[in-house]
Amino acid sequence: MNSDCLFCKIIDGKIPADIVHEDDQVLAFKDISPQAPFHSLIIPKIHINTINNLDTSHQTLLGHILLTAKKIAVDNGLSEPGYRLIMNCNEDGGQTVFHIHIHILGGRPLIGFG
Amino acid sequence: MNSDCLFCKIIDGKIPADIVHEDDQVLAFKDISPQAPFHSLIIPKIHINTINNLDTSHQTLLGHILLTAKKIAVDNGLSEPGYRLIMNCNEDGGQTVFHIHIHILGGRPLIGFG
Repeated sequence: MNSDCLFCKIIDGKIPADIVHEDDQVLAFKDISPQAPFHSLIIPKIHINTINNLDTSHQTLLGHILLTAKKIAVDNGLSEPGYRLIMNCNEDGGQTVFHIHIHILGGRPLIGFG
Repeated sequence: MNSDCLFCKIIDGKIPADIVHEDDQVLAFKDISPQAPFHSLIIPKIHINTINNLDTSHQTLLGHILLTAKKIAVDNGLSEPGYRLIMNCNEDGGQTVFHIHIHILGGRPLIGFG
């Protein structure tokens, strides 16, 4: 936990969120500024600043995050029409919260790469 | 292997590609239609159509794909300025080749979500 981190505060229940999935390793909730009809974030419950901080000790967790994205897509009817997963790192990537997260966007055609 | 799959043909050496990383599980190569100064794809060597086809048997592989993305970012000087990872599923996601792949984009600010 990082006491200055917005997402750690959400995990800790200090800031409310519209939760779509939770298990022992990850939390998923709606983005408060959705860029598509469906826009959720999945975050690990442990604090990791950026993708740059990942190592092989996180391999299983990372696989779980992607499998959770698939599950959330299924649960929300996105699987067949389709969806996009995005992870941003640092300034050029457009990362705004420094606790790693994956965006799940769906419900409209997603065009281009940003 | 799927004999009709473009990416399986690249893995098999039947179609050339500008390879940036290879190991026993994944192959990474430059996108032939780059959307940023750096734009590579990472693909698993086993054929998987879409994210929808993933299950827990792929968890370790998925973690390895994300750790490979981090390594490629380091190797190409993208870590500090930043980069974006994108996985597309089916039509709304903009998936064009039905062999799962993750895009790594960097070298310019990436804005919006497509």
